[in-house]
This record gives sequence, structure tokens and C-alpha cells, in this order.
Amino acid sequence: MRVNGTNYRTIWPDPDDPTIIKIIDQRHLPHQFKVEKLADIDHFIRAITDMHVRGAGLIGATAAFAVYSILLGCGKNWRKDLAEECERLSAARPTAKNLTWAVKRQLAVLAEASDLESAREISFKTACAIADEDAECCRMIGRHGIRIIREISEKKSGKTVNILTHCNAGWLAFVDYGSATAPIYQAAKEGIRVKVWVDETRPWLQGSRLTAWELAGEGIEHEIIADNTGGHLMQLGMVDMVIVGTDRTTRCGDVANKIGTYLKALAAKDNNIPFYVALPSSTFDWEICEGKDIPIEERSGDEVHYLQVTGADGTIKRERISPSGSEARNYSFDVTPARLVSGLISERGICEASEEGITGLFPERKSP
Amino acid sequence: MRVNGTNYRTIWPDPDDPTIIKIIDQRHLPHQFKVEKLADIDHFIRAITDMHVRGAGLIGATAAFAVYSILLGCGKNWRKDLAEECERLSAARPTAKNLTWAVKRQLAVLAEASDLESAREISFKTACAIADEDAECCRMIGRHGIRIIREISEKKSGKTVNILTHCNAGWLAFVDYGSATAPIYQAAKEGIRVKVWVDETRPWLQGSRLTAWELAGEGIEHEIIADNTGGHLMQLGMVDMVIVGTDRTTRCGDVANKIGTYLKALAAKDNNIPFYVALPSSTFDWEICEGKDIPIEERSGDEVHYLQVTGADGTIKRERISPSGSEARNYSFDVTPARLVSGLISERGICEASEEGITGLFPERKSP
Repeated sequence: MRVNGTNYRTIWPDPDDPTIIKIIDQRHLPHQFKVEKLADIDHFIRAITDMHVRGAGLIGATAAFAVYSILLGCGKNWRKDLAEECERLSAARPTAKNLTWAVKRQLAVLAEASDLESAREISFKTACAIADEDAECCRMIGRHGIRIIREISEKKSGKTVNILTHCNAGWLAFVDYGSATAPIYQAAKEGIRVKVWVDETRPWLQGSRLTAWELAGEGIEHEIIADNTGGHLMQLGMVDMVIVGTDRTTRCGDVANKIGTYLKALAAKDNNIPFYVALPSSTFDWEICEGKDIPIEERSGDEVHYLQVTGADGTIKRERISPSGSEARNYSFDVTPARLVSGLISERGICEASEEGITGLFPERKSP
Repeated sequence: MRVNGTNYRTIWPDPDDPTIIKIIDQRHLPHQFKVEKLADIDHFIRAITDMHVRGAGLIGATAAFAVYSILLGCGKNWRKDLAEECERLSAARPTAKNLTWAVKRQLAVLAEASDLESAREISFKTACAIADEDAECCRMIGRHGIRIIREISEKKSGKTVNILTHCNAGWLAFVDYGSATAPIYQAAKEGIRVKVWVDETRPWLQGSRLTAWELAGEGIEHEIIADNTGGHLMQLGMVDMVIVGTDRTTRCGDVANKIGTYLKALAAKDNNIPFYVALPSSTFDWEICEGKDIPIEERSGDEVHYLQVTGADGTIKRERISPSGSEARNYSFDVTPARLVSGLISERGICEASEEGITGLFPERKSP
């Protein structure tokens, strides 16, 4: 998508030297646009854990390139080293399904590799394919999801469709387009009037820092709100639909997404507002049915105690909000039960958030 | 309540010169404890509008002393000036019922005043009475509310009772004790084990800045959480009850409180967790039944765009979080419908959040 008029993806091999993998270091947005080279596997893991990159799809694509990076650093014990380093990589963050999905897919194709040289080649091609597929899935989510927006627009006789989103499930969370934002970008492209309410998304502020920046870049009307505000807007009839992303969705349709998503789903239900979740199929966890079995990441309380921002002058500032004697708890995700989800938007279409609905679109995943 | 071991109220006349009214300027907490003298009516209004003082009860008490301050500044046209200035004062903030309640109460008793001198005396006495009654109401809320905490504690065989609160309805929001916190302080005093989950309460951060500071001062176990987190904690069984305050509650039990309260009430309902609202009767709006008729304050979007904190070094810092091109919307309150409220805790006892329940405790307010 566009950054000051130039098209970018969130991760890409350097065209002049494809062994160099580049990312947008998202910690510095919205005030600074910084590209970072990821040098080795430690650097890849740090980039995932410390959230230089974040978002389900982008974590998956980064992990895929990380496997390539492991192989670039390996010698003759590459099979053993690869297995060990992939285990470390898989633990970089616990909730997003795409991470282990990408690592497992790499390991599956690498099992066929005859030597290190061909393993490097295979893993590079696979990483590029995962990145391309992620972008393509998001593009397809846009094509399917726009139907919902178009219907609301028609019901409102062309008046602005007001969409609330939480966190960042935009192109910065994937390789391109985004999941929750793809239908919005597609709607804007087709001339449907849309306006986005952007939850600021404490503690890491993905909404006010990233989603708002993305939407501004694409010229989409939006307003930032405190996470507390969405329910009130829904009560006042100022929200026509909610679209969010997900870091892991069970085969029965329970949705783990950024902490606070569940509260918005409850408010949507209480006000009869459709609540949609957009995801590429790489985000499904086919092994589990119940949301309570999804591992939920707990991060440092310092993300709550301190507000860290890159000032307009480029320096990183870190200010303590809370009293020095107080503790803080910081869970990164919560689970929205399927009963609160109006539908799932995937690359294959829209389905009900239920095992039947999901396996209707993905029949190869039906239980035997 | 205690600040570094010394007992304070949030507003008081200087003992050496009672024409000087002092407050704790809450903008500087938790890092700095600053006492401010309010010089004249403009200063009082600024202190309310710009939130040097905030919270339903304290806004009421401050308004009561503001009327005294108006009279100190008046000459022979004092009746006319008083009426005009009181109108300006009443508009300082729109949602908290206590503001107009206190001004109306002053004007009612001042109608009897024979001259300016006696008017000053009457208004000073009335302001002191309003402050004392506010503290006494909160003390009584503590006495009634502890029953609910004690019951849960007994059911849990003395294990810690986990209480979630939103915003600051502590002693800093009143003259003393607080509404939502009064039962908690009382429980701790009686040896019941309690732990408080403190919603940080964006955008103004009343929770992490004020409630956490209060609880630390009284030695109450607590942890700060992002506003997004409460639903997840409830799903995990980590919350036994919710207590919040209110800025205005209708005669039928609809509750206007800090933005985001409604979302926590929905989550409490979805998880069968009791949700209580504590209030002195000065916060009831006896004129209206439906929450939608409560005026909801909208404040500057800058409270969302910028994070303003007093650094540990005492300087005020203001950092922009969001992109410069983005807009923000900032409603200060939302309405929790009575159907989501387990009960109201007032100075007269606990009642159902319904017209019948409320007028059962306040029979003098029954419709003829």
C-alpha cells in the first residue's frame, strides 16, 4: 500500500541482494518511517518479540523468511541447527497461529531438500510464496468483504457506512492490503462512502499509531477514539458494522484477537450491529474447537505503566503514567466466543463462525 | 484519606483564613502532590472545566464553595451578579448532576438572605455542610457496600475478593472516602482480603493516575490494567464483582459514568458477575427516567491525540501519539442501562436499579 505515494509491502527481500530481508520497523510509526534490515535469526526473533513487526499475517511471513535466515547461517550440521532454531523461533510469540503455521510449512518442504544449498533455495522460494499468498488472501478478503459494506451502503441510500475497528488488522499487520481493512480499501476504491472509527488500542496503541496512519495514507475518512468509546457510539447509532482481524481462530469459530475485542463484540451484539472477523485461512487453528485452549500472551506491565512514543523530533520518549508503587497486568489478547461473531471473511468467502460454516468453505478440513 | 500518612480532604477552607479555599490539583498526580488556592470565580470555573478537580461529589462541593467565592467578589448588585455568575458556573461541565444540584441548593437558601454579609455567611456554611454531607454519604456507602464484599468473601471462604473498578470514584472524586472505593476501604479496615483491578481509564487516565495512587496510599492490593482487559479477566474468573461510581443516575436507574463503563457492565452481565454502582443521593437526577436524556460531555480530541503526564521531574510533558493528519472524538461519559446494574449503593442502603427500588429508599421522591 502507499507510503507518501510509493507502494510498499511490510517485508521484502532486497532486490539487489535477496539474502537481505527488509521490514518496516513499526515501533517508530506514525512519526517516523524506518526500514530495518534483519541480519540473522536472533534479529528476526527480536523483531517479532519486540514488535518491530506484528500482526498475524506479517508474523507468519517474517517467520517464513526467518527460516531462510537460519539456513543462511548454517553449516554442515544444518538439519540439527534448523530444527533447534525453528523451535526457538516458534516460541517468539505464543498467540498468532500464523507463526507456527509458517515454520511448520517450511519444515515440511525442507524435509525434501537434499543439501544445504537446495534447502536455502527452497526456503527462500517458500517464504516468498507465503508472503505472496498472504497478500493475495487479503486481496480476496477485500473482494468478499466489500459485499457486506455495499449492502449496508445501499440500505443507507449511499450515506456513509460507519465501520469500527480495533487494533491494527491493516496492511501493516500482513504483507499487503490487510484483513479487516481490505474490504474498506476496496469499498473506497469502488466509490462507496466509508468512515472508520479507530480504537486507539492500549497499551501498544496499534490503532492510533498504525491504523490511523494507514488510513490517512490511503485517504480514508477516520477518527481515533479511546478504547472506552465504541459502546457509546454504538448506542447512539454511529456505528453500522465492526470488522476486526484475529491472531488465531478455532475450527469452531472462537476468535482470539487483540485484548478488548470481546468488549466490542458484546456491545455490537447488544446494539444489533454486525460484527465480522476477517482472516486468511493460515490463521485458523484446525486442532482446537474451544477458545479457552488458545494460549494468551502476557507481556510486561511496563507497556501499561509507561507510554512510549517516538516524538516528532525522532527521539523515543518513555513516560511513566502510574505511581511507582503500583503493579500492572498486561494480557495481549482475549477470546470472542463464536456466538458473538456475525461471520468470518476469508479468502474463500464469508461463512458463519461455526464448525459447520468454516468447514463448509474448507471441506478438506472436515473431521473424518 | 491519607497522603504520606497525613489525612486530607480534596477541598477545604484554609483554617487561618477561611475566605481562601484550597484543593488538591489532581492534574499533577500521581507524581506530584500540589495544593492550589482558588482565588475567584473564574479560577473555580477553570478548576472544574480543566479538571484540577473532577468526580461527581467533588465537582458539587467545589461548586458550593464557588458560590461563596462569587459573593466574596460581589458589591451592592450582588443578587443580580450572583444569578449571572451561577449560570456560568452551572455550565462548567454538563454531565455531573452534583454541580447544578449544589448551585441550586445554595441559591435556595440564599433567597432568604437579607444582605450581602449574611449571604456570604449562609453560603459559606452551606458549602461546608455540602462538603461534610458528601463525606458522610460516602462513609455510609462504605458501611452499606461492605455487606456485598463480605458475602463474597464468605462464599470464597476468606480468599481474596477481586474487585474491578473503572475511572476514579475514590476519595479524590468526592470530599473524602469516595463512593465506589468506600466499601473497599471499609472491607480492608475490617480485615477482609480485597484486591482491586484498576482500569487505567483513557483518555485522562483517572484510574492509573488517581485510583492506583489512592489505593497505594491506603495500602490496598491492586493492579492496573488497560481498559481493554477487564472482559478477559472476567472470562477467566479473575473478577468477583465490579463497583463503579456515577456522574448522574436517572430516577429509573440508568447510569451515566465515565466512558467505557457500559462495556464493563456488558462483560459483567455476560459472565454473571455482580455490577454495582455507588452514589450519594445528590447524584440522582429526579427529573428524568431515560439515560438517553442525560447530556454527555464532549471534550477536545487532543486528550486522545496527546498523552500529557507530569514527569517524575515535575515538568509537564505532552506527547502526540497519533498521526498529525488524523482526527479524534472524545466523549467523556456513556450510559449503562439499568438492566445491566445489579444494584445501587447509596447513603441510605442498597436498592435495585429501578424507579421502584430507588423510590423505595427515597420515598419523598415518589411521583404523586
